[in-house]
Amino acid sequence: MGWLADETGLEKCAANFVPLTPLSHLNRALEVFPERTALIYGSIQRSYLDYHARISQLASALKGRGVQPGDVVATILPNTAPQMEAHFGVPACGAILNAINTRLDSDTVAYIFEHGGAKVVLCDTAFLPLAEEAIKKMHAPAPQIIEVADPEHGFAPGGHYLEYEDLVAEGDPMFQWIMPEDEWESIALNYTSGTTGRPKGVVYHHRGAYLATMGNLISWRMQLYPVYLTIVPLFHCNAWTHGWMVPLLGGTVVCLRDVTAKGVYDAIADHGVTHFGGAPIVLNTIVNAKDSDRRPFDHIVEVFTAGAPPPAATLAAIEPLGFNVTQVYGLTEVYGPATECTWKPAWDGITGPERADLKARTGVLMPMMESITVHDHGKEVARDAQHLGEIVMRGNATMKGYYKNPEATREAFEGGYFHSGDIAFMHPDGYIKITDRAKDIIISGGENVSSVEVEGVIAAHPAVSLASVVAKPDEKWGEVPCAFVELKDGAEASEEEIIKFCRERLAGFKTPKRVVFTDLPKTSTGKIQKFELRAVAKLLD
Amino acid sequence: MGWLADETGLEKCAANFVPLTPLSHLNRALEVFPERTALIYGSIQRSYLDYHARISQLASALKGRGVQPGDVVATILPNTAPQMEAHFGVPACGAILNAINTRLDSDTVAYIFEHGGAKVVLCDTAFLPLAEEAIKKMHAPAPQIIEVADPEHGFAPGGHYLEYEDLVAEGDPMFQWIMPEDEWESIALNYTSGTTGRPKGVVYHHRGAYLATMGNLISWRMQLYPVYLTIVPLFHCNAWTHGWMVPLLGGTVVCLRDVTAKGVYDAIADHGVTHFGGAPIVLNTIVNAKDSDRRPFDHIVEVFTAGAPPPAATLAAIEPLGFNVTQVYGLTEVYGPATECTWKPAWDGITGPERADLKARTGVLMPMMESITVHDHGKEVARDAQHLGEIVMRGNATMKGYYKNPEATREAFEGGYFHSGDIAFMHPDGYIKITDRAKDIIISGGENVSSVEVEGVIAAHPAVSLASVVAKPDEKWGEVPCAFVELKDGAEASEEEIIKFCRERLAGFKTPKRVVFTDLPKTSTGKIQKFELRAVAKLLD
Repeated sequence: MGWLADETGLEKCAANFVPLTPLSHLNRALEVFPERTALIYGSIQRSYLDYHARISQLASALKGRGVQPGDVVATILPNTAPQMEAHFGVPACGAILNAINTRLDSDTVAYIFEHGGAKVVLCDTAFLPLAEEAIKKMHAPAPQIIEVADPEHGFAPGGHYLEYEDLVAEGDPMFQWIMPEDEWESIALNYTSGTTGRPKGVVYHHRGAYLATMGNLISWRMQLYPVYLTIVPLFHCNAWTHGWMVPLLGGTVVCLRDVTAKGVYDAIADHGVTHFGGAPIVLNTIVNAKDSDRRPFDHIVEVFTAGAPPPAATLAAIEPLGFNVTQVYGLTEVYGPATECTWKPAWDGITGPERADLKARTGVLMPMMESITVHDHGKEVARDAQHLGEIVMRGNATMKGYYKNPEATREAFEGGYFHSGDIAFMHPDGYIKITDRAKDIIISGGENVSSVEVEGVIAAHPAVSLASVVAKPDEKWGEVPCAFVELKDGAEASEEEIIKFCRERLAGFKTPKRVVFTDLPKTSTGKIQKFELRAVAKLLD
Repeated sequence: MGWLADETGLEKCAANFVPLTPLSHLNRALEVFPERTALIYGSIQRSYLDYHARISQLASALKGRGVQPGDVVATILPNTAPQMEAHFGVPACGAILNAINTRLDSDTVAYIFEHGGAKVVLCDTAFLPLAEEAIKKMHAPAPQIIEVADPEHGFAPGGHYLEYEDLVAEGDPMFQWIMPEDEWESIALNYTSGTTGRPKGVVYHHRGAYLATMGNLISWRMQLYPVYLTIVPLFHCNAWTHGWMVPLLGGTVVCLRDVTAKGVYDAIADHGVTHFGGAPIVLNTIVNAKDSDRRPFDHIVEVFTAGAPPPAATLAAIEPLGFNVTQVYGLTEVYGPATECTWKPAWDGITGPERADLKARTGVLMPMMESITVHDHGKEVARDAQHLGEIVMRGNATMKGYYKNPEATREAFEGGYFHSGDIAFMHPDGYIKITDRAKDIIISGGENVSSVEVEGVIAAHPAVSLASVVAKPDEKWGEVPCAFVELKDGAEASEEEIIKFCRERLAGFKTPKRVVFTDLPKTSTGKIQKFELRAVAKLLD
């Protein structure tokens, strides 16, 4: 240990130690970039001077309404300006932000209200019925509802609750923020979408949020003054910490209530959006945009995509449109992305399917993480692009643990690593390639079938827009692959045709035994809800 | 304080907390960028794989030779490959790096050896006489000398000491690094050049070194794969932490033993150098390069300059050559740069002297610092570009304190800020403008005269290459400005002519009363040694 022989007088003090927190980024932006545009939402444009003052008002008003350090403040908000403001304003009064997924059912929201103990909920007018229904189902004290109206988008205040603008107006724009005294204090509480059982409350610390912003901007090759579009919902890992990151670079956050092709193209053309994150499905939306929704632009938009590898066909279609797509991988437990498919200059000349294969790699560890690897029985697997194991990781952008669930926390952190539950192999150059979420793997006749692999093959069929493959129980094989397919507008294909297409490209045991043509059920973040498909698959003959 | 109602099971553990240290950058580079070039020195080129292995060997060999965690390992080395390797290898065995300025006299080196207690010194063959002389003057146990030969540059091993390559050969390339268990552990001990009295030993913590690398790369708008040239000596604030930073981006450090125009141009043309830091005097060297030393290149080289504002004439000359110059300001106590003259897009169209004026601003706080301002009696001065005060700062890239000098530490950190001793005003937009190092201000007839201002005027004279202005004692006025001037090759000017030139542009009390034409004495980092000039000024009639 690197302690000098005499460390007298070398202790931490106010001059040389400041708890790490993304709040510092915004305080610095006020000093360095006061006149630059911090936030755009519809007709709203705020400079850092205004943005900081609004946030100070929000923090001050929450405090005035009885919110104390350590209290939880929930939001049920789309990616609107108030959601972004809450990301700074809630921690600025020492409280913990609990951004709730707007697509949840009222049962689950009631559970989250009770489990998290929110004192206040900032709720968009459109989601008031959800909050009200949830509160009706609660047995514990309910949060106070603050209504967040959005008249410009057709949501006028109902008049039953204190409205957000009136709350903000109560606050002092010069309010002295309550900064963390310890960087291990909690900044956010994010419930995982949990396909089975109750969601778990992932607790973020200020330190991790700060370091995740640093690591993300490095991986994303961001320089000063980015223009960031909110497509990843802010209730999903706090949009991968990106909203906290932008002030560090004097950049602009463009909020987008509804993710449509027109909305994305307009934001790029009108505001010069340079960066956004989103699931591959968002890429599809862009690729399949109507001509009337498209707008010309002359820069490259950098896209972080996660949730599934971007299909080769999508990549081939989107890159010529001016988008550079980089895959990242992570989980709520690690503040969003933790690996990135860092592009090597040596790959520059590679095109077509080989390029897509490279872009589909899960990648290597991002700068704020210390180690990410693939373990089989506690040891790293051979780097042979074959041996499967579980992705495990450790580093400073890892959650404190699950709220009120020390047992699940202990289990998740066993052996000093966070266990992702995702299955992968390692390429000889150390790049990880995820083959399946642990729960999505199909075991057919004792062989592991990667649903992602089968999906990739089906997606290459010219009639197919989207495909999802799940396990279907089978008497003989245990499980067999079952495919659910969305066809392109106007395109046609038969079950036999798809199966034949797969058989020509895959081992027999990997070929789907059934193909169902249907609209795929998706979560708010664009992930396909495989648990629903599994339920359907069970019922198929 | 943001502690949740129930924090059970949410403590730090191996999965979610890793002490911050720049050592992590190199460990990650080994995983992510193994095949990329980490280091170039003369004919040496090392990949990250090799670089990491060499450093592991060095750490292992030092341990084998009895260096224990907490011990101090000194270096007396120019910017050679071993100096760069020591920056990682010494902390990788848990020891503290004490990089000693090669230009110091043997008395001072003896003092540093005794005060720092170095156990080993890695000493370049050229500086063996200095180390030997210093050791002769010591009363405490002397460090063991390891000779670092540099045959390619004309310094063959003398044969009296264990040679660096033989030491490295003793080590294990798979040595498990001794990582800090606490990020507050010490990583480096840097003695300030102290113009009067004994130098003070500034102690760096691992946390600050890590965060300084993050902040520097953001300010410098660096992306993946920079090529960094070592011009700032690594013994000067560890080259502003840049050597520790480069692996974070998979970049290349190009080591340069002697800073010459030819050396700089060759490195840019041969290795594609993208970034370097250096005093304005280095800019002059480039501007005044002989035609035969110049090499063409077609990218923009980003230059951080510090120590004095870049003169308008230098900027006007160097920018068309392909260099973008950004001024930064800092001190050893804050790991090098702490403010940067961040360029505003709104300034893009501005040219000539007005552009130089903007570029000469000291700037705004860099991302790893929490606050930098100008205090007069403990309060921020008015932002009116007039009121003078002392630059004070606080943040995570601030030293632990002065080694074995708790009193000086307490004084430096009084009131929760590090006191720089530098005098400045603030522009209305918050940009700081340094007017003088506190000790360099001239007080004439009760009026403060900024030596920097007078120097700027003299430097604009067409015959002048460099100017330095100091106080000369004066019976009537207390002090008067006295100028020391280096003329351009072949140029001529008289004392009267320079004084007249100044009188036309400056208030009478700011006009130098004497002008002396001479070569200016400089430190190893290119700073003009005003204390020597002051001594001369005293003796002038």
